[in-house]
Amino acid sequence: MAQDKTIMLPIFLSLLLSASDALVQDFCVGDLSAADTPAGYPCKKVSAVTCDDFVFTGLGKAGNTSNIIKAAVTPAFVGQFPAVNGLGISAARLDLAPGGVVPLHTHPGGSELLVVVQGTICAGFISSANAVYFTTLYKGDTMVFPQGQLHFQINSGNDNAVAIVSFSSPNPGLQITSFALFANSLPSAVVEKVTFLDDEQVKKLKKVLGGTG
Amino acid sequence: MAQDKTIMLPIFLSLLLSASDALVQDFCVGDLSAADTPAGYPCKKVSAVTCDDFVFTGLGKAGNTSNIIKAAVTPAFVGQFPAVNGLGISAARLDLAPGGVVPLHTHPGGSELLVVVQGTICAGFISSANAVYFTTLYKGDTMVFPQGQLHFQINSGNDNAVAIVSFSSPNPGLQITSFALFANSLPSAVVEKVTFLDDEQVKKLKKVLGGTG
Amino acid sequence: MAQDKTIMLPIFLSLLLSASDALVQDFCVGDLSAADTPAGYPCKKVSAVTCDDFVFTGLGKAGNTSNIIKAAVTPAFVGQFPAVNGLGISAARLDLAPGGVVPLHTHPGGSELLVVVQGTICAGFISSANAVYFTTLYKGDTMVFPQGQLHFQINSGNDNAVAIVSFSSPNPGLQITSFALFANSLPSAVVEKVTFLDDEQVKKLKKVLGGTG
Amino acid sequence: MAQDKTIMLPIFLSLLLSASDALVQDFCVGDLSAADTPAGYPCKKVSAVTCDDFVFTGLGKAGNTSNIIKAAVTPAFVGQFPAVNGLGISAARLDLAPGGVVPLHTHPGGSELLVVVQGTICAGFISSANAVYFTTLYKGDTMVFPQGQLHFQINSGNDNAVAIVSFSSPNPGLQITSFALFANSLPSAVVEKVTFLDDEQVKKLKKVLGGTG
Amino acid sequence: MAQDKTIMLPIFLSLLLSASDALVQDFCVGDLSAADTPAGYPCKKVSAVTCDDFVFTGLGKAGNTSNIIKAAVTPAFVGQFPAVNGLGISAARLDLAPGGVVPLHTHPGGSELLVVVQGTICAGFISSANAVYFTTLYKGDTMVFPQGQLHFQINSGNDNAVAIVSFSSPNPGLQITSFALFANSLPSAVVEKVTFLDDEQVKKLKKVLGGTG
Amino acid sequence: MAQDKTIMLPIFLSLLLSASDALVQDFCVGDLSAADTPAGYPCKKVSAVTCDDFVFTGLGKAGNTSNIIKAAVTPAFVGQFPAVNGLGISAARLDLAPGGVVPLHTHPGGSELLVVVQGTICAGFISSANAVYFTTLYKGDTMVFPQGQLHFQINSGNDNAVAIVSFSSPNPGLQITSFALFANSLPSAVVEKVTFLDDEQVKKLKKVLGGTG
Repeated sequence: MAQDKTIMLPIFLSLLLSASDALVQDFCVGDLSAADTPAGYPCKKVSAVTCDDFVFTGLGKAGNTSNIIKAAVTPAFVGQFPAVNGLGISAARLDLAPGGVVPLHTHPGGSELLVVVQGTICAGFISSANAVYFTTLYKGDTMVFPQGQLHFQINSGNDNAVAIVSFSSPNPGLQITSFALFANSLPSAVVEKVTFLDDEQVKKLKKVLGGTG
Repeated sequence: MAQDKTIMLPIFLSLLLSASDALVQDFCVGDLSAADTPAGYPCKKVSAVTCDDFVFTGLGKAGNTSNIIKAAVTPAFVGQFPAVNGLGISAARLDLAPGGVVPLHTHPGGSELLVVVQGTICAGFISSANAVYFTTLYKGDTMVFPQGQLHFQINSGNDNAVAIVSFSSPNPGLQITSFALFANSLPSAVVEKVTFLDDEQVKKLKKVLGGTG
Repeated sequence: MAQDKTIMLPIFLSLLLSASDALVQDFCVGDLSAADTPAGYPCKKVSAVTCDDFVFTGLGKAGNTSNIIKAAVTPAFVGQFPAVNGLGISAARLDLAPGGVVPLHTHPGGSELLVVVQGTICAGFISSANAVYFTTLYKGDTMVFPQGQLHFQINSGNDNAVAIVSFSSPNPGLQITSFALFANSLPSAVVEKVTFLDDEQVKKLKKVLGGTG
Repeated sequence: MAQDKTIMLPIFLSLLLSASDALVQDFCVGDLSAADTPAGYPCKKVSAVTCDDFVFTGLGKAGNTSNIIKAAVTPAFVGQFPAVNGLGISAARLDLAPGGVVPLHTHPGGSELLVVVQGTICAGFISSANAVYFTTLYKGDTMVFPQGQLHFQINSGNDNAVAIVSFSSPNPGLQITSFALFANSLPSAVVEKVTFLDDEQVKKLKKVLGGTG
Repeated sequence: MAQDKTIMLPIFLSLLLSASDALVQDFCVGDLSAADTPAGYPCKKVSAVTCDDFVFTGLGKAGNTSNIIKAAVTPAFVGQFPAVNGLGISAARLDLAPGGVVPLHTHPGGSELLVVVQGTICAGFISSANAVYFTTLYKGDTMVFPQGQLHFQINSGNDNAVAIVSFSSPNPGLQITSFALFANSLPSAVVEKVTFLDDEQVKKLKKVLGGTG
Repeated sequence: MAQDKTIMLPIFLSLLLSASDALVQDFCVGDLSAADTPAGYPCKKVSAVTCDDFVFTGLGKAGNTSNIIKAAVTPAFVGQFPAVNGLGISAARLDLAPGGVVPLHTHPGGSELLVVVQGTICAGFISSANAVYFTTLYKGDTMVFPQGQLHFQINSGNDNAVAIVSFSSPNPGLQITSFALFANSLPSAVVEKVTFLDDEQVKKLKKVLGGTG
């Protein structure tokens, strides 16, 4: 009987194998060398995929917070971690030195879920209805920021703060409002017109953040 | 033969009618009196739906531009036009008096397509990569603003400008950055921390836009 | 302090820049030279995208209505306006000369929202339940046609009528029933069988609309 | 050790049970007594769901083909089979007596996959590009009809034909073109205008199919 | 008048033709020679698509049940039937010889709808809440298995059983639990740890099913 | 001028406020007292939503690992954290005591992304093609498990291990294979038939895991 099973096995396995050719959609590790599509990158050949593709080690060490915001975002988006391509999820590590802040920003492509791993973070978002939702988060607290809403995180403690954030998209995007306004060539007159900010303030921040015009 | 057809018709129609009970998803006119869901509002009974449900007349007349931005947005979102519920589309009318502006804003829930019906509009958006895409649009020109990106429209002519805008969602949302920052109770200290703006500037705009804290 | 900011800026910007490589999904301007996918066309390289990609000027002038239906549809679908690729929206201009009509048709891929910009239009759709919803629309009126439903527009006034229509898909499709029946090689016998139309009628319209068989 | 396991089991099971309260989305058997939503019907309580909810017996017997089209469609859509609610699939049985036909129709909400179980069927569809794809199907043959495209099935054999059809939606809809045109109150003048059909033909079919006006 | 129509026709048809270039999304027959994407395969050129692409004949004949499970699954997934690419549906034929069984399995990518065409089948699934839903199905009975749930089919009659199954995905996948556990190189110690199975049992089945380690 | 702004402000704000009524879809905090739908729970009234709704504190403390698997899963799914309703994301905390294991399981509704916060974890998944992908993860390592695939986590170190896992669904589900097989009333004969397991083994585990039949 076991003999019989052994004989028949190849036949059955061959079905599975041939079928498996059609099952690449178990996963679709992104081939970043190919052009992206609205649904994500074309898939790397399954035969070339190894377990290493599904593992990302970049979130293990602190980002460099020696910068203007005393903060660092280390992304594990599809661009850094191609295995999340098409899976509707990605992650990042957030490091905030004392006084550090992730300035007001949005993720155009997805919602964010933040888990505080270390320290104390003041976090919040502002809804389209202009309502403010903000609070202080301690180690182990989780907060969700709905897709596209303006939000921020501030280290409100005296030590380093670390959070693991995940997103409902492999490619959520990151648009920091003050960089969008002051770190490019958008003319000061336009910035002032669309924000009500004073000319002096706009020119000052353009200078600080490397903008022109 | 036609006689025969006439006799058999009720049988066949009865299939269609009973079937039609299951076909409410031809459309799902929103019942705004019920609780919303992530996919939209529950459907009004098909038997209570009339052609008037599918017609919205609010975009026919100019909005009131006698306000701080010399502009008016007249929405035909699901809240005003329940027939778009579940259909993945909505619209609005944009009126810009001379000097009018729709301040920097995002639509968290959808992409926007703008068609200039009258006048001249300077419009643009800023990508997550911080790149600026802006230009001057004339009557008949169309511009698309990708979902979630910061964008603006300014009347760059000497007469009134009017645009018809449509969205890839029945409920795209509208988040005006300066109102999110200055027209609510978000503490000035937090605003300054997450935007790099000066205290004086923040307090001035909070006063102008009705914010507190 | 500003000095300190200036020093640290490159570090922070480099994060943004590297991150931005992964943010192509801010938008995905279609590369029509590549093969389409079920989610749309592959994306044009972001570095090759300019503001002009997001602007379409074709809806500014009237279409040629000197044809059998005294009407013209000028599409701004992904095929004409690649920037809408993946954004879930597109548009078109509808011109109806006096007596003009857009014959009974469906858009297999999306819902339609119509705004009358000039003139008077009799428009309607028929639901799967066989119910008829039709009315007369005047300048500024908006009507929504749910996805896949048979609908039509007729100039019911004495002057030209113009409408801006938008769709919940970059590629809604357009299937005109009488062209599907009479403007191709579908055998008359089959057409008659599946429509109950008389042979004489079918052959007459096949001749008028250029069909064979 | 087994003792230890037995002791600890309730603790672990209680996790599973409490967790299971959140897992209703294993399935969402539709509660047809509640209002539909754009995503389908609200879910019947899991505690009230039995295996019978997942079984539909209606496709087992032939539909009544004693009607104008000598055909019957027996649907297992969400309206008849609430277990498919939210699952993105449904089915139907198609019976075609000799000479039977399913007239030209569309399913606004989904694609159709047909498997011939008995007999011979001439089936086809017409694309938006106006191209005709039709052929003769024999027992065991499968044909797919893309969403929203006009298609038809004709019994091209001498015996009864039976097919099992499935759809990519729990609620695909069914819009039969000739019933949409001739079996309701859409005025003849409008029908003629939007189809190019002759008045005599329209009035004849309205009479046959029970239409008015 | 007909003359006039004939003259104007080319103008109108040319609109349709150029438009049709953008309408490839009527369907997207998969080009399996290209890399897959998260949304499916790139589309075969419409000009190269023929009616044969939409027809699959493989479900017409019984699969080979001379194997360990006395069963055969003949898939019409995108890998075998590229026309379903992007259409959200696929199908398969299930043959069960007397004593045949489709072992416990899941379809990671879609829900399954089964219609018994011949014989008697004991079928069931187990929910995340650990509840069992199983019953005996007779010719013509339909059962739906919600996405991702463990399910099985057993021939509970004395003759061959045949079923047509359809899926809510062009590429539902097929993961047979015992093959996942015993037909590969997953070390026995790991299998035992994650299943509570005894070493002897694991080693026995690895030998039977061709596993190693 | 500021005076003028102040006067006009109410007019403009009133637009925002009325508009905001339609913007509940900024978020849709689930009302768990209402019936679920295929897209999630109906939304709690925005006026009743506070910042606390967006914060979950349950992931801060270790789960109770004094159980058969020496492991605990603390979910922050929609059932425990209603704010994730409709947002396409959720999270959980995983605690593994020395020797602890999360047995072979699937999440029918979503992909999983795991970040090791403490300790060493041997984790892996098995694809539909029967390929095994497993490895050892250290503090800070991230691994993604594609939707619906069988996977497991084992504490391969000598101390407690902790991981933060997130999912691409507010309600991913959790189906533990051995509980599905042995912890319910699925008859032993059926279990044996669909798994190839021996009667003795099945009966033994049913006894250990609390199953019957």
